[in-house]
Amino acid sequence: MNKQELVRQIKEKRSFLCVGLDSDIKKLPAHLQGNEDAVFEFNKAIIDATAPFTVAYKPNLAFYEACGVKGWISFEKTVNYIKENYPEIFIIADAKRGDIGNTSSLYARSFFEEMKVDSITVAPYMGEDSVKPFLAYEGSWVIVLALTSNPGSHDFQLTKDENGTMLFEKVLATSKNWGSDRNMMYVVGATQGKSFENVRSIVPDHFLLVPGVGAQGGSLEEVCKYGMNSECGLLVNASRAIIFADSTENFAAAAAEKAKEYQQQMEKELRDRNII
Amino acid sequence: MNKQELVRQIKEKRSFLCVGLDSDIKKLPAHLQGNEDAVFEFNKAIIDATAPFTVAYKPNLAFYEACGVKGWISFEKTVNYIKENYPEIFIIADAKRGDIGNTSSLYARSFFEEMKVDSITVAPYMGEDSVKPFLAYEGSWVIVLALTSNPGSHDFQLTKDENGTMLFEKVLATSKNWGSDRNMMYVVGATQGKSFENVRSIVPDHFLLVPGVGAQGGSLEEVCKYGMNSECGLLVNASRAIIFADSTENFAAAAAEKAKEYQQQMEKELRDRNII
Repeated sequence: MNKQELVRQIKEKRSFLCVGLDSDIKKLPAHLQGNEDAVFEFNKAIIDATAPFTVAYKPNLAFYEACGVKGWISFEKTVNYIKENYPEIFIIADAKRGDIGNTSSLYARSFFEEMKVDSITVAPYMGEDSVKPFLAYEGSWVIVLALTSNPGSHDFQLTKDENGTMLFEKVLATSKNWGSDRNMMYVVGATQGKSFENVRSIVPDHFLLVPGVGAQGGSLEEVCKYGMNSECGLLVNASRAIIFADSTENFAAAAAEKAKEYQQQMEKELRDRNII
Repeated sequence: MNKQELVRQIKEKRSFLCVGLDSDIKKLPAHLQGNEDAVFEFNKAIIDATAPFTVAYKPNLAFYEACGVKGWISFEKTVNYIKENYPEIFIIADAKRGDIGNTSSLYARSFFEEMKVDSITVAPYMGEDSVKPFLAYEGSWVIVLALTSNPGSHDFQLTKDENGTMLFEKVLATSKNWGSDRNMMYVVGATQGKSFENVRSIVPDHFLLVPGVGAQGGSLEEVCKYGMNSECGLLVNASRAIIFADSTENFAAAAAEKAKEYQQQMEKELRDRNII
C-alpha cells in the first residue's frame, strides 16, 4: 500500500485507528476456548466488528508465537482474512525484528513475500544493514522503533550523546536517510507527550505508529497536538482497550463500540485541523 | 542448564564451539530438496556429525520463519532432537526479541515453557522491562545484544554519551544489574577485536556469545586473547563456515571436519590458558 492510499483511507473513514490484535489465548472469552482455532475465530469477529472504524490492524507476533505452530497458523489465517475481506486496511506485523543483513533479508522475505503484510516493526540497535533489507520491497513499509511507550524506554533511548542529542533522535536522524517517508514510519509511544515535538522537528513528514493509548495511559489529545501533520501522519494503536473491552459473548459488539469511540475522537481531531 | 554444567561440558569437550543452524532452505544440498522436511533432515545430519565438537547449537529463527508454518515445525523438531539425543548441549534460540514487558513475558513463555530452549537472544533498545521477563525462568538464560558483528553495529552501538561511555558499554553496565552471570550472557561480535577489553572490564565473569568468526571474518585468536576468562567465558559461533562447508551428499562429514578444526584451535587456546 502506498502513502496516498493510506491517507485516502484515513480521510474516508475519518479515523487513524490501528487495532492491535494482541490476542492472548488465555484472555479470550470462555465460549471460544473450545474452538479448534480460537485465536482466529476471535480475530475474525473483532475484525468484522471494528473494520468500519479502523485503518490498520497490528497483530503482535508474540501472542501468536506463544501458541507455537498453531499460533503461526492463526497469524497467517488472520492476515489472509484481512487481505481478502478488507484489502484497503493496512497490516502491520508487530515483530520488532532486526538482525545482520543476511538474516534481515530472510525476515523480509518471510513477512513481505510469504505473508504479504504491508509493514513490519524493526528494532534499530544493529544499525543500517539490519534495516535496509526490509526497504527493498516496493509498496512495503518498515516501522522503526524510535521512542517506545514502556517504562524501560528511558534506559537507553533518552541517553544524550556528546552533542546533547538523545539516542532516539539520532535513530530518527540517521535512519531517515535509509529510505523515505514513503516506505518508513517510526514507533513513538503515546506516553511520551511533548517528545513528539522533537520527533516532528526531525521527521516532519513520516507517519508515526503510536502505541500506548488506552491500557498504557497515553492521551490521544496530546499525541495529536504535538504529533499530527497536514496528512494526519499518525496511526494510533489501541489493543487491550478494544479487543478485551468485554469478556462475554458480547465481546465483538463491545470492541466495535470502543473502536467507534476512538474513531469519533479522531474525527474531531482531524476536523479541528482541517484535514477533513 | 546452569553455568557449572556449561563450564563442565566445555572442559570435557575441550571446545567452546557453538554451531549456528542458519539452515536456509535455498542453500541445502540438492539431494535433500525433495524431502518432506528438508530443513530438519539437514539439521539432524549436521547435529549428529558435529555434536562431539560442539557445546551449543544456535538456530536463528529467521531461517525457520522464512518457511512459514513448515519452518516453525522444523524448528521445534530440531530443538526436540537436540534435547533428546544430546541433552548436555546448550540451545540458543537466536531470535533477537524484545518488546514491552507484557509482550516479552509471552515471548518468554513461548521459548522457555513451550519450546524449552536454554536461552534466547534479546535486543536491549526497549530497556529493562523488555528484558526482565526472560529472567524469571530458573535455569534459562537471556543473551543481550551488546556489540554485534555487522557493519551497522557502528551506527548506534559506538555512540558516546556525555561521559564518553559508548552505548554498548552502557547497555552492559546497566543491564548486568537486571540479572547475574548465572542467567545472562552478552553478544559481542568476533569482528570487534580489542573492544573485548572494554567488555571484560565491565562484565568480567559473564559468558559472551561471539558470532562473526568464519564467513564474517573475525579472528578466534584475537577473541580469546581479549575475551577469555578463567572459566573460558566464551561461546564462539560459526554458522555458514560449518553447515555449508560442502554442498554435496558429503555435507555432514565436511561439517564435522570443519567443526573439528575449530575444536582443535579452541583446545589449544584453553590449554594455553591452563583452563584444561
